[in-house]
Amino acid sequence: MPKDHPRSQEVSLLGSNGTQYAQDYDPSVLESVENTHSYRDFFVKFNCPEFTSLCPKTGQPDFATVYISYIPDEKMVESKSLKLYLFSFRNHGDFHEDCMNIILNDLVELMDPRYIEVWGKFTPRGGISIDPYTNYGRPGTKWEEFAQSRLLQHDLYPEKVDNR
Amino acid sequence: MPKDHPRSQEVSLLGSNGTQYAQDYDPSVLESVENTHSYRDFFVKFNCPEFTSLCPKTGQPDFATVYISYIPDEKMVESKSLKLYLFSFRNHGDFHEDCMNIILNDLVELMDPRYIEVWGKFTPRGGISIDPYTNYGRPGTKWEEFAQSRLLQHDLYPEKVDNR
Amino acid sequence: MPKDHPRSQEVSLLGSNGTQYAQDYDPSVLESVENTHSYRDFFVKFNCPEFTSLCPKTGQPDFATVYISYIPDEKMVESKSLKLYLFSFRNHGDFHEDCMNIILNDLVELMDPRYIEVWGKFTPRGGISIDPYTNYGRPGTKWEEFAQSRLLQHDLYPEKVDNR
Amino acid sequence: MPKDHPRSQEVSLLGSNGTQYAQDYDPSVLESVENTHSYRDFFVKFNCPEFTSLCPKTGQPDFATVYISYIPDEKMVESKSLKLYLFSFRNHGDFHEDCMNIILNDLVELMDPRYIEVWGKFTPRGGISIDPYTNYGRPGTKWEEFAQSRLLQHDLYPEKVDNR
Amino acid sequence: MPKDHPRSQEVSLLGSNGTQYAQDYDPSVLESVENTHSYRDFFVKFNCPEFTSLCPKTGQPDFATVYISYIPDEKMVESKSLKLYLFSFRNHGDFHEDCMNIILNDLVELMDPRYIEVWGKFTPRGGISIDPYTNYGRPGTKWEEFAQSRLLQHDLYPEKVDNR
Amino acid sequence: MPKDHPRSQEVSLLGSNGTQYAQDYDPSVLESVENTHSYRDFFVKFNCPEFTSLCPKTGQPDFATVYISYIPDEKMVESKSLKLYLFSFRNHGDFHEDCMNIILNDLVELMDPRYIEVWGKFTPRGGISIDPYTNYGRPGTKWEEFAQSRLLQHDLYPEKVDNR
Amino acid sequence: MPKDHPRSQEVSLLGSNGTQYAQDYDPSVLESVENTHSYRDFFVKFNCPEFTSLCPKTGQPDFATVYISYIPDEKMVESKSLKLYLFSFRNHGDFHEDCMNIILNDLVELMDPRYIEVWGKFTPRGGISIDPYTNYGRPGTKWEEFAQSRLLQHDLYPEKVDNR
Amino acid sequence: MPKDHPRSQEVSLLGSNGTQYAQDYDPSVLESVENTHSYRDFFVKFNCPEFTSLCPKTGQPDFATVYISYIPDEKMVESKSLKLYLFSFRNHGDFHEDCMNIILNDLVELMDPRYIEVWGKFTPRGGISIDPYTNYGRPGTKWEEFAQSRLLQHDLYPEKVDNR
Amino acid sequence: MPKDHPRSQEVSLLGSNGTQYAQDYDPSVLESVENTHSYRDFFVKFNCPEFTSLCPKTGQPDFATVYISYIPDEKMVESKSLKLYLFSFRNHGDFHEDCMNIILNDLVELMDPRYIEVWGKFTPRGGISIDPYTNYGRPGTKWEEFAQSRLLQHDLYPEKVDNR
Amino acid sequence: MPKDHPRSQEVSLLGSNGTQYAQDYDPSVLESVENTHSYRDFFVKFNCPEFTSLCPKTGQPDFATVYISYIPDEKMVESKSLKLYLFSFRNHGDFHEDCMNIILNDLVELMDPRYIEVWGKFTPRGGISIDPYTNYGRPGTKWEEFAQSRLLQHDLYPEKVDNR
Ligand SMILES: [Ca+2]
Ligand SMILES: [Ca+2]
Ligand SMILES: [Ca+2]
Ligand SMILES: [Ca+2]
Ligand SMILES: [Ca+2]
Ligand SMILES: [Ca+2]
Ligand SMILES: [Ca+2]
Ligand SMILES: [Ca+2]
Ligand SMILES: [Ca+2]
Ligand SMILES: [Ca+2]
Ligand SMILES: [Ca+2]
Ligand SMILES: [Ca+2]
Ligand SMILES: [Ca+2]
Ligand SMILES: [Ca+2]
Ligand SMILES: [Ca+2]
Ligand SMILES: [Ca+2]
Repeated sequence: MPKDHPRSQEVSLLGSNGTQYAQDYDPSVLESVENTHSYRDFFVKFNCPEFTSLCPKTGQPDFATVYISYIPDEKMVESKSLKLYLFSFRNHGDFHEDCMNIILNDLVELMDPRYIEVWGKFTPRGGISIDPYTNYGRPGTKWEEFAQSRLLQHDLYPEKVDNR
Repeated sequence: MPKDHPRSQEVSLLGSNGTQYAQDYDPSVLESVENTHSYRDFFVKFNCPEFTSLCPKTGQPDFATVYISYIPDEKMVESKSLKLYLFSFRNHGDFHEDCMNIILNDLVELMDPRYIEVWGKFTPRGGISIDPYTNYGRPGTKWEEFAQSRLLQHDLYPEKVDNR
Repeated sequence: MPKDHPRSQEVSLLGSNGTQYAQDYDPSVLESVENTHSYRDFFVKFNCPEFTSLCPKTGQPDFATVYISYIPDEKMVESKSLKLYLFSFRNHGDFHEDCMNIILNDLVELMDPRYIEVWGKFTPRGGISIDPYTNYGRPGTKWEEFAQSRLLQHDLYPEKVDNR
Repeated sequence: MPKDHPRSQEVSLLGSNGTQYAQDYDPSVLESVENTHSYRDFFVKFNCPEFTSLCPKTGQPDFATVYISYIPDEKMVESKSLKLYLFSFRNHGDFHEDCMNIILNDLVELMDPRYIEVWGKFTPRGGISIDPYTNYGRPGTKWEEFAQSRLLQHDLYPEKVDNR
Repeated sequence: MPKDHPRSQEVSLLGSNGTQYAQDYDPSVLESVENTHSYRDFFVKFNCPEFTSLCPKTGQPDFATVYISYIPDEKMVESKSLKLYLFSFRNHGDFHEDCMNIILNDLVELMDPRYIEVWGKFTPRGGISIDPYTNYGRPGTKWEEFAQSRLLQHDLYPEKVDNR
Repeated sequence: MPKDHPRSQEVSLLGSNGTQYAQDYDPSVLESVENTHSYRDFFVKFNCPEFTSLCPKTGQPDFATVYISYIPDEKMVESKSLKLYLFSFRNHGDFHEDCMNIILNDLVELMDPRYIEVWGKFTPRGGISIDPYTNYGRPGTKWEEFAQSRLLQHDLYPEKVDNR
Repeated sequence: MPKDHPRSQEVSLLGSNGTQYAQDYDPSVLESVENTHSYRDFFVKFNCPEFTSLCPKTGQPDFATVYISYIPDEKMVESKSLKLYLFSFRNHGDFHEDCMNIILNDLVELMDPRYIEVWGKFTPRGGISIDPYTNYGRPGTKWEEFAQSRLLQHDLYPEKVDNR
Repeated sequence: MPKDHPRSQEVSLLGSNGTQYAQDYDPSVLESVENTHSYRDFFVKFNCPEFTSLCPKTGQPDFATVYISYIPDEKMVESKSLKLYLFSFRNHGDFHEDCMNIILNDLVELMDPRYIEVWGKFTPRGGISIDPYTNYGRPGTKWEEFAQSRLLQHDLYPEKVDNR
Repeated sequence: MPKDHPRSQEVSLLGSNGTQYAQDYDPSVLESVENTHSYRDFFVKFNCPEFTSLCPKTGQPDFATVYISYIPDEKMVESKSLKLYLFSFRNHGDFHEDCMNIILNDLVELMDPRYIEVWGKFTPRGGISIDPYTNYGRPGTKWEEFAQSRLLQHDLYPEKVDNR
Repeated sequence: MPKDHPRSQEVSLLGSNGTQYAQDYDPSVLESVENTHSYRDFFVKFNCPEFTSLCPKTGQPDFATVYISYIPDEKMVESKSLKLYLFSFRNHGDFHEDCMNIILNDLVELMDPRYIEVWGKFTPRGGISIDPYTNYGRPGTKWEEFAQSRLLQHDLYPEKVDNR
């Protein structure tokens, strides 16, 4: 086991025993790490098929796969803290569209990324499923146009959905 | 259950008991909600695999999966009212292409969105299936060109269809 | 076109223009045809992915794919009449399990088959989908045990369901 | 809407507004309905892809698709109460194998079915996923052997799993 | 059944009993209907997995799925007449590439559309399958460039083919 | 090229130039070859996804994938002659169930096999597709019971059908 | 978080920080837990798509998905210890067939189960992939015959493999 | 690299440099290794998607995926020698059914296994594909009946074939 | 059979009996036919899943699916001659990248097309598979830029590969 | 076997017997070969589904499919050396994002390519999987903009991920 890895001290959460799971929406659990490759533009995507929240009106649980994709600047979101953050929606009630925009806002606040997008694909309620997609490019930079271009090309080929 | 959620009073349909299902095409059931993230362009997509209407000539039932995708401005369509609206086509007779354009028109009327598109994928009759796709960008804005661009790139890779 | 085919006169519904679609559950539309291969045991299966009925309590529409499979004796169900029969559930309200058992009963009444089974796979409501399966072998014959054997082996490998 | 359906009064939960969601494991929410086709052996299967519980040791959430399949005797489980029951595991901590056996036991207690089986397919932790399967045939009847036979044939063709 | 639908008289083929099926290539069976939404650009696609013709050299049958997609101007092709038209290739011999270009030419002649494309995906002969794709934009309009753009992006991600 | 292969003279059709394609149902084109491994029971299956016939009533074309599987005794069906035989249904009108039983009867007549089964999976008409399955074991031998056993286990897991 | 769960003290590995990963084959890492449902026969399956070992001859890495399925008696294998055990093959060299039989033997030694089976599906080398399957029923009990029955029905429908 | 593995000397082919590839059918390249687990019945399956031979009549290449599955007695076939053996069919001409029976015979000759089966799934010629399946149980032992049972259950659910 | 088709004399290979299969790489077998639709730009694609060659170093066989797609000018490649040409690589040794570029060069030489691309997807060796893609637009025309644009968009969404 | 192939002497690794597998990250094993088609821009892609490394913090193994795609200039990476290079990560600990950027950097150093991209798709840990994507175009050339364009279009349609 590579104990002497130079970045192994950086994040306190990895492998730690006494992890605390927040019981309601809690953006304070998010932690960032330094991006050691900021000389280059590159994407990092998180596939999160275990997202669940509550309907703000009825209290019934909602389920989604959330895809988060971003181009870091100086900071990156630490993946275990992201897991805890998403977990904190478990007993929290909010509309689908609000959840996705809130996640986007919190990650912009945390990392100040060059570009980021958040896509939620929810399971159906009443025979209809809802998929919100929101993105962001740093204002006043080329990434603003980058975001508009990706919005223009968003989901031209929707996945086949048959509720089974 | 988060009873005190600030938006929980906004929509009367959610969870209500005495829902009335319209028996024929009825756009008046559509309701809108306020978009609390109108400072940003983002997509909302509805996957609706349980759409059914009647053939205007023979009266036999038609079935489709309808995909509705839009970028809201100040208003969003409330999802349960959309379900009731789509349900109201159940005993209504109209051609495939007309249904999709009517849905588009009614949602433009309701929400005045920045951009919207409606795609229906019907099951086959006589060995042939029909998939109408129609879209709209608010006239006189950049969204008009946005709509043309998406039309240009529409369905370049058709799904494999073999009628089974 | 083979106009002089010996069986072309047998069924009045095929290709007829003035087909009447029943508005509620109507087993009287079912018609039978003679089985010209009754010297042999063989299966006929109908795949019916366009079944829809109403929830008896809420009135909301339910959707299912229904698989009907049987071994005929002297009679077979005419396929166009079966379509009309299944269509007659469109505005009829009944529980999933009842619908499948009723279809079984009506087809037994019509054809007196050696063996028959009916399997409905419904789309989800509230995150759960229901699949009733019911079968029948003619009492007092080997087909009774045949039915029990197929029940024993029923659905040992459930299809993967993820509500999308 | 078929208001006068004879069984529409039977279950109080369907469509009711003030549904209460239990916050921890609560088998008392389960309700049964009468089986009107008890003259016949038939299967009812529930596909439940939205099951989630907590790890009893670490508190982290677990996710599974649960398949419940049974042959009713005089009683059937009401599907909305089943949804509430499964929901009550949301903040409850128990091992995968325990959850499946507990569900089986509770449904046997509720319905006294002829036969029942419960299969959970969990998402991976540490690169390994766990799928418990448990079944039951009423003791002292032919259904006891029925259960052993299905156990013998269980999952001879495991689904392809690659953690993506 | 909506007998009084305003467009129900327009097309004589729908539901008619005495349909004549042409025995060889016959473009005269094509019929058009008025496009009531010509104020907008929208796509209509036909999925036709039951296309079959004969090899002009050997006489052996060829099979294909044909995808026809177009943006109508004032006229649309009536779908039942399209079925009869495609059926008329059944006993007609022509090369794959010729069939697709002929279909394109005939539909341009019939409808004078803004844009149209035809794609055939044939089953293999001698281990190789052939997929011709041809398109057209009305000359002297922006649709001419529209066609070139779609050609440029055509089939960048070929479907996986393994002849099984 | 192995010109001197001992079996290369046996069948006149392979590679021959002047093949004649029958225009209507013609069982006389079937040819048999000797089974050089008759000391053993083994299966040969033909997958025939390009079967097409005509509806005896309306004349419209029907399409199916036909699976033919058998255990030869002294004779085997030559595969190119089987192709011509199936082709001869192209302009022939008969019901789905009749076609499958006729194919079975003709191949029994030709080969006198130990066991044979024929399964047709047709594309839908009016939203319903039909799949006949028929089998045969040589009477008075163990293969008769073999056929009954396979009938008992036939299609316990129907393929998912959604008409697309 | 359910800290007071009665079984939370039983296994020391779950959530512990200082996990040691063995560098070569080490069956001593396996731990068992008590089966609290030993009054019933039920299956537990582990899906392990991240198995890797070394070729004993060339030293090149081999990859497999391993499926382990068993019916416990009084003991169950603790899942995190199983992960560490399988991990210990990472730098160990052995033939595919040996690895699977060794895993089976070690788990029999650990748990003394009623029944167990181990199936490895390896990635190809030189265009061929190898899938060993081995099983075991406790000698002198009905589980011995249980194992033979499952062997008889093993893999009658091999998955489609095309090396892509 | 585990150089001192006790079985690493056993097979000369693994990793050797000067491998000779036979140019025509050559069963002499097959080598066996000792089965160190002959105290148990277990399956070994080879998935061979790169099988190719020549048509004995026309000389055109044929392609297949071959599945070989067996229960060893004292000997096992060495996998690299099996690769060379299958490769030797590359320029050899024989009918599909003959190839599969020859492979079976050669492996029986080599290993004297308890049980073995060989299944070839060929790509189509003239729109039809052929899948021979042959098996063998050691005569005068229980494995003879084992082979008959598997033949009885062979391929009850044919894979979907559409020649693409 | 349409004997009098005007193009039926053009190609001598179709249906001919004495076809010669080249034993090593032989571009001289390629034949062209006239493009009767050269007034239009359209694509023709060949799907060739049965490509096999030899590794130039070890002599072991390589397998690939080759996709060839082009826009013809005055000439088209005759499909049966293409089959023979690809077949001639069977006993020829060359690296993957060389094979694809050679095929491209030979087809440019034969047809002088407006545009052409060749994509090979090989099966893995040592756990890695290689997919070369090469394209060409006629120099000094707009097709040169056409080729660069398609290169820019090439394979942005690689197919999922898992070596099984 | 083509012994006299002109390029067969170029690479010493192919088929060599005494291959040494590095035990930790070792870019020195990478070897290049000459690109004999440098007169043209073309892509070469490596699909590497057997990548595994260690978590730098916990030491537990990580698994990924890595896709490497590049346009060579004068040099190409030799595929067997690439296999050894990727293998050298097996016992090396580094974060996902670092691994992908390091591979990119090493291959740029080795080949000085026109363009290159590296995409890793990792299996999940704690319910979340991470997919880094990084690319590079030679600075000061048109390939720099080429890289930015591909970044802009990267992964607009994420694969469906459900952790099973
Ligand atoms: Ca689905
Ligand atoms: Ca579907
Ligand atoms: Ca599904
Ligand atoms: Ca399909
Ligand atoms: Ca389908
Ligand atoms: Ca799904
Ligand atoms: Ca996979
Ligand atoms: Ca998955
Ligand atoms: Ca296939
Ligand atoms: Ca594959
Ligand atoms: Ca297919
Ligand atoms: Ca395929
Ligand atoms: Ca794969
Ligand atoms: Ca595969
Ligand atoms: Ca899933
Ligand atoms: Ca998976």
